[in-house]
Order: sequence, then structure tokens, then C-alpha cells
Amino acid sequence: MEKQVIAKAQKAREAARKLAYISTDIKNDALLAMADSLLKNTYNILEANELDVREADKNGLSRALIDRLLLNQARVADMANGLAMVASLPDPVGEVESMWTRPNGLRIGRTRVPLGVVGIIYEARPNVTVDAAGLCVKTGNAVVLRGGSEAIHSNTAIANIIAEAATREGLPDGAINLIETTDRDAVNVMLKLNDYIDVIIPRGGAGLIQTVVQNATVPVIETGVGNCHVYVDRYADLEKARRIVINAKCQRPGVCNALESLLVHQAIAAEFLPEMLDALKAAGVEVRGCERTRAAADWVKQATEEDYTNEFLDLIIAVKVVDNLDEALDHIYRYSTKHSEAIITENYTRAMRFLNEVDAAAVYINASTRFTDGGQFGFGAEIGISTQKLHARGPMGLKELTTNKYILFGDGQIRE
Amino acid sequence: MEKQVIAKAQKAREAARKLAYISTDIKNDALLAMADSLLKNTYNILEANELDVREADKNGLSRALIDRLLLNQARVADMANGLAMVASLPDPVGEVESMWTRPNGLRIGRTRVPLGVVGIIYEARPNVTVDAAGLCVKTGNAVVLRGGSEAIHSNTAIANIIAEAATREGLPDGAINLIETTDRDAVNVMLKLNDYIDVIIPRGGAGLIQTVVQNATVPVIETGVGNCHVYVDRYADLEKARRIVINAKCQRPGVCNALESLLVHQAIAAEFLPEMLDALKAAGVEVRGCERTRAAADWVKQATEEDYTNEFLDLIIAVKVVDNLDEALDHIYRYSTKHSEAIITENYTRAMRFLNEVDAAAVYINASTRFTDGGQFGFGAEIGISTQKLHARGPMGLKELTTNKYILFGDGQIRE
Repeated sequence: MEKQVIAKAQKAREAARKLAYISTDIKNDALLAMADSLLKNTYNILEANELDVREADKNGLSRALIDRLLLNQARVADMANGLAMVASLPDPVGEVESMWTRPNGLRIGRTRVPLGVVGIIYEARPNVTVDAAGLCVKTGNAVVLRGGSEAIHSNTAIANIIAEAATREGLPDGAINLIETTDRDAVNVMLKLNDYIDVIIPRGGAGLIQTVVQNATVPVIETGVGNCHVYVDRYADLEKARRIVINAKCQRPGVCNALESLLVHQAIAAEFLPEMLDALKAAGVEVRGCERTRAAADWVKQATEEDYTNEFLDLIIAVKVVDNLDEALDHIYRYSTKHSEAIITENYTRAMRFLNEVDAAAVYINASTRFTDGGQFGFGAEIGISTQKLHARGPMGLKELTTNKYILFGDGQIRE
Repeated sequence: MEKQVIAKAQKAREAARKLAYISTDIKNDALLAMADSLLKNTYNILEANELDVREADKNGLSRALIDRLLLNQARVADMANGLAMVASLPDPVGEVESMWTRPNGLRIGRTRVPLGVVGIIYEARPNVTVDAAGLCVKTGNAVVLRGGSEAIHSNTAIANIIAEAATREGLPDGAINLIETTDRDAVNVMLKLNDYIDVIIPRGGAGLIQTVVQNATVPVIETGVGNCHVYVDRYADLEKARRIVINAKCQRPGVCNALESLLVHQAIAAEFLPEMLDALKAAGVEVRGCERTRAAADWVKQATEEDYTNEFLDLIIAVKVVDNLDEALDHIYRYSTKHSEAIITENYTRAMRFLNEVDAAAVYINASTRFTDGGQFGFGAEIGISTQKLHARGPMGLKELTTNKYILFGDGQIRE
């Protein structure tokens, strides 16, 4: 098993050397050929997927998990469309972001180049195989994919199809690699291959991400954990506030930019909360609150320290009434995972204070936290949402899969 | 000891919260007050430094090491001038790099914010205490400094002086912290404080850097190792080539951007090498070469695999005659640490091929590798030279001590 992982990573490293300076035309042709090949081989993909689904059924996987695993004609078409869309985006590689001339005549440019070899470790959804490979091809990175064992047949079929199409269009052999063993130790081997892999991006639940962060010696871009707050200020437009809270909590509760804790200024709590809590209840949300929240509705459960600390990723919300803006800022400083935080207020100075003082990837005034997303930001594509500060923070698009290289044009300059 | 390290890092974390949105005016005032205070306390600093130097003498430290440790009035003045210079640079914090409006009216801006708490682990030179603290103050980062035990008295005196001046001007207590114990385990404690330290930058020899990279769970920015090549092409201006080689090798051989291996195209080896090798010999450089190099001068020693692999950081050079540009590119691909690489040629197509195909932080045409440096690049200041690909690559200026935060201005937007 270890040999297979190392061999694939080595092959990726060799491919990366050539991929780094391959033209955008060839990369786009490869993406379109990959899309075409997925459509043409839909039947084979669905056949492989059926094996995974049958296995999952036999192993008693939850309905939700099986739904994430399941492919059909429309979902395969979506994957192909995704590749065509990535082909249509501008290529960040080769962009000269700035160029200047030093007093000695030396011209220095800062240009974008691929990272090299990107490792992606992910869970059930087989579409990640296509999405991640597409973004890596576009940015000239070789990719080593390691999907969940539940999707092994689907992922193997998909990876073979797109890798074959990519090579046919002129990408080096080894540009797209899937670790085909389901041995769990394969992940641990990948995490230590500093000589062959430049960065690892885990995509999945908190457990997967923590395993990767704790054990990797390869640099990691951490994604995904969002304990997001909405603070309803005393000067909020309460109607706007209710609409935003319902949207941020309910539109898709299982994702990282969904609302987890609601903070309410005490001066408007009596006016705001009863209707807000009723609306949450009507939307099927379980509410856990502080004493002052429970004074507004007796059916609200008592919130614990844990409720304020962890993501629910479900139709559950923690609510707290705070004395003032300072207490809201302190609460967010203490519990925030620095993903997405919002204030609802009509007061300019308080809005700007929140914007300046809250440290997070995305800080909102009067909008739903659900917009923290590469697509919603207008990036065209997204490889994940970084919750760390180094290299990339917030939604990561194509540019975040590149690094810089300085290019220097001299005519014999030496240093005095 | 562990308690002291944790307490300082905690204090830094608390200070960082306030530092993040302190005005540039206050930060600049603090930098100028720090400079002023260093000058006023020159006598105290030199007194403390004398203790370190005496100790070093007693312990039999090398003359070179003691010289790096030694302070005098001029060196203290240099440190103060450095702080005044940093005060004069533009502040990257608060810069809105781009801002756009989405179709739904949501306005999204990408702004620069401090990283938070920066840990610096360094060796003998006490001036790093001032340089690093100054760059961190300017960028709104709290800093936890851990210097070498040889400089403990100097570093303690300096840190107390500048921290006091900074607080006097309104920076939060805890903005500048020095670990005052010389216990070696203090480093290991620092390396694991993910809750309090956002990034660690090691500055020193390869041993120190490897210790940090291998043991840190806090993200690290790797600096410094440069196995740099100059390739003299068959179409090189040989006079230019000789001047650049001597400069890159001899101007300051102990630094990371100095030349370590010279590659020479076989077609011009007979014409180029004898004079080149004589010039290196005259400059006191020991030459280790391949068979074909030794054919040009019998006094050249046989180069080993190790000579091509490691940095000499000394007046020693490895030389290899290559058949063609491809062999040069292969050699560099195999041995380069991706720091600084140069081609000397008058041929446009070959120059551009080298520029595109060599993967390094800085790739040069017809200039000395010694220019890979924040000052020489025109950045005004430098915290180090990154040899990794994530976050920062090449000389790191003030901007590399910041990260981004997205700020979103809405008027009630919710996601459909």
C-alpha cells in the first residue's frame, strides 16, 4: 500500500515539472475533453456507482450519506458542466502581478506559478474527484486524490476516465492520480510525503480535518469549521434582522457558513425575541438560550457552554441576550472560529466598529453569513473555504492554488 | 519555564486583539519612541552586551560568533535608524486591495489585517530583537521573541527598553515579548502553542530551521536554505559571466543567496573556464569540479555528490560542465533548493526557457543571485527570505506579515 501511495506521488511530482509551463490552451482543451469523456462514459460511471451504493446499503449507511454518494445522469452532467465552466475562467498562472525596475536597471517581476503537487483528502461525494482535478488542471498543479472508501468504485471509474482524457490532450502522464487502495493508512503515508506533495487540502467533517492537521508534516490548508454568529444590535432594523437570521440558520444548516449562535442586544430583546423565536420554531429550529432568552419564550431550552462553543450543523441555534456591543464583541472573540460573523444595525459607527474589531475571514454588516462561498463571492470556482490565516483565508479560488515566483531581467548587474 | 512561555504567549494574544485596529499614527509614534529610547539607553545596552561577550569569551565561542554578538554605539544607532526607517514605510494594514459589488447589491472588499501573534526564533545577533519587533509593531502583530542564549543579557535589556517605549506611546501591554529563560525546552513549548501563536518564523542556520519545521504544530514560514546555481550558457557574454560568478560567490559567501554551484556549457568550457577558475582561485575560492572542469585546471579537486547537494556558505564552489541546456535544467531540478537560480546568456529563447522552466523563488537572467533580498528588491524591510511555497515565497516584506479579511456591506441580503 505504502509503495502505491509513494509511486503515485512521485509520478505527480514528475508531471508537475512539465505542467508548470504548459499553455492555457492545452489545459482548457484537456478540461473540455475530460467533460466530454465523462458524458460519453456516463453508463460506466453509473455502473461503478451502483456497486458503491449497494455496498453502502449492505453496510447500513444512513439515507443522507447514501444520497451524497449516489450518482445519476443529471449529476454526471453537472460534473461535466463544472469542468467546462472552469475551462472558461481566466488562468492565474503566468499573470505578472507587478513589475518594477530598480535604480541599477534590474527589472523585477512577480508572477504566478502553480503550487506543484496538491493532495486532496475527502469524504463521500464522488463529484469532488472531478471538481478538484479540474481546478488543479486549470492551475497547472498535479493532483493526488484520496477519496472515501465508500466511493471507491465511483472514484476509480471517474479518475480513470478524466486522467485518460487529460493525457490524450497533451497533459503529462501523472497529472491526475487517485489513491486506489481503501487502506486507511494510505492517508497517513500521504501526510508525510514532503518531498512529493506541496500542500494538502482536507475536505470533509471536523474529524477528518483534525486528523490531517495533527498528523501532517506536509503544509495543510485548513478548511471548514464555522461557529458563526449574528449579532442583532439595539439599532437594528428588526424585520431585516429576522429575515437574515432565518436565512443564515435555515437555508442550509449543515454547512460551515450557517448561523450557529444569535446574540441580541438587551434593549430590543423584549420587542425582537418573541416573534423571532416563534419564526425559528415554525421553521423547525430547536432553540437553546440564556436565562433572558428563556424569559421571552418558556419552551426555549437552557443553553450550555458547549452550545456556544460547537457547531450544530443542524436545525439548532444558541441564543444569548447581551448587555451591549462590547459584550457581543467579547462573546465573539471568545467563541468564534473566525469564519463568518455578522452585525445587524442601522447605526453607522457601531457597524464600522464591528467590522474593524471582529477578526474573521468574512465580517458582514446587514447580510446573511451564507454568502461566504467562492461562487457567491464571484470567484467562479472554489476549492474550499480556508479558516486559517496563512496563504489563503476565506473562499479559495484558482489563485489560491498558485504561488509566486520572482523573475529578474538583468544585463550584468552585480551587487556592490 | 513552561508557565513563563505560555504566560507571555497569552499576553501577546490579548495584545494582538487591540493591536489589530490601532491607528498607523500610534504605531509610527511607538516605533520612533522605541528608536529614541534605544539611543538614550545605549550605555545600559552596551553594559548588558558586555556580560554576554565576556561569557562568550569564557565559553570559547569563535571570533566570528562573538563579532555577531558584539554591540557598540554605531550598531545601536543602526538599530534605532532601522526603526525610524520602518516608521517611514507605508502600513499594509487596512489596505483594501479590491472591492466589488455583486449582482444582489452586496459589496465585498478584501482588506489586509495583521496575522495576530508572530513567534520569532533566532540565533546570536541581538539586532534581530529590534528588527523583528519593529516589523511586527508596524504591521499590528504582537511578537514573541526567542533569541539565542549567548545574547540573553543584550536581548533582555533591548526588549525591556523597546517594550516600555511602545507601551508609553499607547501600544497594548504585551505587544512585544521576549522569552527570558535560556532553557532550550522553551522553544519546544513555543512550537506547540497553536491557541496563542499564529505563525513562527525561524531565523538562523539549517539546524535551527529543521528543528522548528519538524517539531512545530504552529504554522511555520521556512526561511533561508539556498543551494543556488549560475548556468553559463554557450551563448553567454563570458566577461559578464565571470563578473557575475565572482560577485555571486565572493561578495558575501555565508548567506543564502550566494552562489554554490556553477554549471558551464561544454561548447564554451575551454574558452571560459581557465580564466574563470584562475579568478576564483585569486579570490581565495576552493574549487571542486567534475572531470571536464578538472581538465581545464589540474589544481581543481574532484567534486562529490555531496558538493552538488549542500550549501557551502563559504569560499568553496562546485563546478560542472554540462552537455546542453537540458542537462543544466535537469541538474538544477535535481539539486536546487528553489531559492535563486541564474542563467547567463545573450540568447533570448534560451533565456526565456530557463525563466519559465526553473522553479525557484527568484529566477535570474544575466544578474548575480545576491539580489534576492528585501532591501535589494526595494521592499524597504525584510523579515526573512521564504523558501516555501505557501503564504510567502522569496523576500518577505511588511505585507507578508499580514493576512486578508473580507468585509461585506449589505442592506438585508439573504441567500436564495
